[in-house]
Amino acid sequence: MAKTWATLGADGVDLHVEPTGSGLRKGLTQALREAVRSGRLAPGTRLPSSRTLAADLGVARNTVADAYADLVAEGWLTARQGSGTRVAERTVVAPAGAAPRRRARGRPAYDLVPGTPDLASFPRAQWLKAARRALDAAPYDALGYGDPRGRVELRTALAGYLSRARGVRADPERVVVCAGFSHGLRVLGAVLRARGVRTVAVESYGLDVHGDLLAAAGLRTRPLPFDELGTDTGEVSGVGAVLLTPAHQFPMGVPLHPDRRAAVVDWARRTGGLVLEDDYDGEFRYDRQPVGALQGLDPDHVVYLGTASKSLAPGLRLAWMVLPPGAAEEAAAAKGGVDTCGVLDQLTLAEFITSGAYDRHVRAARLRYRRRRDALVSALASRAPEVEVTGIAAGLHAVLRLPPGTEQSVVRAAAWQGLAVHGLTRYRHTESTAPPLDALVVGYGTPPDHAWAGALDALCEALPS
Amino acid sequence: MAKTWATLGADGVDLHVEPTGSGLRKGLTQALREAVRSGRLAPGTRLPSSRTLAADLGVARNTVADAYADLVAEGWLTARQGSGTRVAERTVVAPAGAAPRRRARGRPAYDLVPGTPDLASFPRAQWLKAARRALDAAPYDALGYGDPRGRVELRTALAGYLSRARGVRADPERVVVCAGFSHGLRVLGAVLRARGVRTVAVESYGLDVHGDLLAAAGLRTRPLPFDELGTDTGEVSGVGAVLLTPAHQFPMGVPLHPDRRAAVVDWARRTGGLVLEDDYDGEFRYDRQPVGALQGLDPDHVVYLGTASKSLAPGLRLAWMVLPPGAAEEAAAAKGGVDTCGVLDQLTLAEFITSGAYDRHVRAARLRYRRRRDALVSALASRAPEVEVTGIAAGLHAVLRLPPGTEQSVVRAAAWQGLAVHGLTRYRHTESTAPPLDALVVGYGTPPDHAWAGALDALCEALPS
Repeated sequence: MAKTWATLGADGVDLHVEPTGSGLRKGLTQALREAVRSGRLAPGTRLPSSRTLAADLGVARNTVADAYADLVAEGWLTARQGSGTRVAERTVVAPAGAAPRRRARGRPAYDLVPGTPDLASFPRAQWLKAARRALDAAPYDALGYGDPRGRVELRTALAGYLSRARGVRADPERVVVCAGFSHGLRVLGAVLRARGVRTVAVESYGLDVHGDLLAAAGLRTRPLPFDELGTDTGEVSGVGAVLLTPAHQFPMGVPLHPDRRAAVVDWARRTGGLVLEDDYDGEFRYDRQPVGALQGLDPDHVVYLGTASKSLAPGLRLAWMVLPPGAAEEAAAAKGGVDTCGVLDQLTLAEFITSGAYDRHVRAARLRYRRRRDALVSALASRAPEVEVTGIAAGLHAVLRLPPGTEQSVVRAAAWQGLAVHGLTRYRHTESTAPPLDALVVGYGTPPDHAWAGALDALCEALPS
Repeated sequence: MAKTWATLGADGVDLHVEPTGSGLRKGLTQALREAVRSGRLAPGTRLPSSRTLAADLGVARNTVADAYADLVAEGWLTARQGSGTRVAERTVVAPAGAAPRRRARGRPAYDLVPGTPDLASFPRAQWLKAARRALDAAPYDALGYGDPRGRVELRTALAGYLSRARGVRADPERVVVCAGFSHGLRVLGAVLRARGVRTVAVESYGLDVHGDLLAAAGLRTRPLPFDELGTDTGEVSGVGAVLLTPAHQFPMGVPLHPDRRAAVVDWARRTGGLVLEDDYDGEFRYDRQPVGALQGLDPDHVVYLGTASKSLAPGLRLAWMVLPPGAAEEAAAAKGGVDTCGVLDQLTLAEFITSGAYDRHVRAARLRYRRRRDALVSALASRAPEVEVTGIAAGLHAVLRLPPGTEQSVVRAAAWQGLAVHGLTRYRHTESTAPPLDALVVGYGTPPDHAWAGALDALCEALPS
């Protein structure tokens, strides 16, 4: 039986060896490494010969010799003919220790911040079933380095689905899978920059992170005017691309007027510019059939972008682009020439779509969100009649127009109610010339079912009644 | 029962309506859209009134009116007071059709190109089991937009594993999950560039795609000398970072000499530079315990990079970095402030590691690859005694030194044998001053078990005997 400790070095360092796990040698190596690392064995210290230490520990001499050799190879010790084994001469690094953890912020009890669907309703069991079927069916080389556009199974399933459900003209060869919309926008930013584009027209209201992503690619953004017909695409000029949310403007909630759909496509044809169509929640329309994708009007000038982040869950990190001819290759190159999304999730989503599970899930989600929207509208009608719900009956959020000058105080009052909710102001482009509006952007898709009633109640409490 | 077709427009376009799926309205909308899209209904054509078409098709008038409204909203039709519904005035887009498919290249029968493990041995059943456990245990908000560094469960599991198995000093707060090594290198390229770095020292031999990724971030590479002790890190100067494969130089197969490990760490401390440690196959050493990570010597100046691409499969697109204090935040920002890897695979890998399945898989893989390497060495000894296997017994590839001037002809002879294999020359940095060597880089990990014997035989046939 081996001893578990020895004393070595001039300062009498106790060396504890744990003869467990991978055995004595590994335990000895770790103990020595730790002794050097922590500074307990000072630089230059001569270690006992392997024979001496082995005898002291009651282990085979080779065990010690091997441990010494490992640590010489790693640079902790040095071995020189005639001077024995010593601790390497280098500044001792203080133990890294644990970096201070970020302080957990007090989490609000209710969350109506838009952008996230009801995560509690993610179809876990169906997803796992699809994962099993997909992995059973996958050829082994599907697990290798893949096509930078993504797995062909998913690109094919998406092309069929998008054509059927969204009127997109999609060829699997021109579908590029990406890790969420933001990744797609990064890739497109690189493509545009490489084409010489310097400025992208965006909507007066939107997510500032989109502007940041374009800025990271060296592109500046310029806001388009916004009025009751939606974004005024007649004003596009002097830019190389336009980023739009045609089916359901985010966050204002209106669809792009047909004349303006036509105008932006005409602009793209005339100038060779690109329209980037962010169809983030195109699956969710409650009062009528959703408006088809703008991309269908001109697939040579419109990049369609869709995502699983609203229809399933952001954590999947799966989104997709349908690109004009040529641009798919540019996007694949901008992705770095390798696939960037896990193959297993891609194959699972392909199976989820082709088996019909995706359609079933979207239908069920549509019903759930529609009920929430109806509950929101009717609660406001009775409890906050001064507050107007604007925008079409679609998506996972609604805009609540507030009396002028009250937005900030309502957001604060909501916080007092334990409710996280965003004012419209934070979505307004800093260069927008549109008159400022007081409003809340309410993400009614966000809470799990059990928290929805409480969230709605807290919202009503915070509103001017 | 509705009719399934009508004739409309001046040119007598047959309109076929499929009263299936989502019903008549959707079928009618699609049929009309397709008629406009294909040009069969010319721009400006006035459509019959909704009453007339409804009567013709034997459907409710609202069905037609709704379909017209959809297509007006999408921009295919226009509706003006007094002029009825017309096909929009715009250039007709020819059907996109299918882009020409890439021609499938004649695939070689055997593949010994390095870089991919045996994909047939991916532990599918165990992975699915871990996925089920992970998804069962995941809180619902794990499926939301996540920490740009990756899921805490995986960062914690990796910190424990890397500390235990590779001697890495890892705190979960400083682990950043990325979508493969190449993604990690892109992120680090952006971090370095933002710090003002312009040049990165690299090894004389390596993957040119790494240079391309750094170049995309605006960084140039400069090769370090290479000799029998490995890369000469004593020559580092005038650069802001060094990219190395210390445990097992890729592709030369030697470990970095202890003095040179010390030298590069000293350089980093002296200059504030960063060492990027690419530990791509550190799990696989066959003759002795693997050399621990260089990062353990100085976690304040070394970025450790590991990957699941060799130990499990590249298709997972999961790799990890352990960064010096501060750099983790820079890397998270360079990732775009959002997680970029699917949460489900991250949670599954965390469960796979903590349950011990990862260790078991790596041990089994180590045994399989070791047997292959032994078979390679003994086959060469008897069938190609002039060919020397160099490098340590480790990893998934070996370097076969060839008689001078024969590399190209051996690669060609291999192709004739139906064998894909790379010569060493393609891994040599274009600015390297090292004398050119004739050699093959043989990836013995690549073939599935059933193809290994055939691949080895084809290799021996192609070698000078």
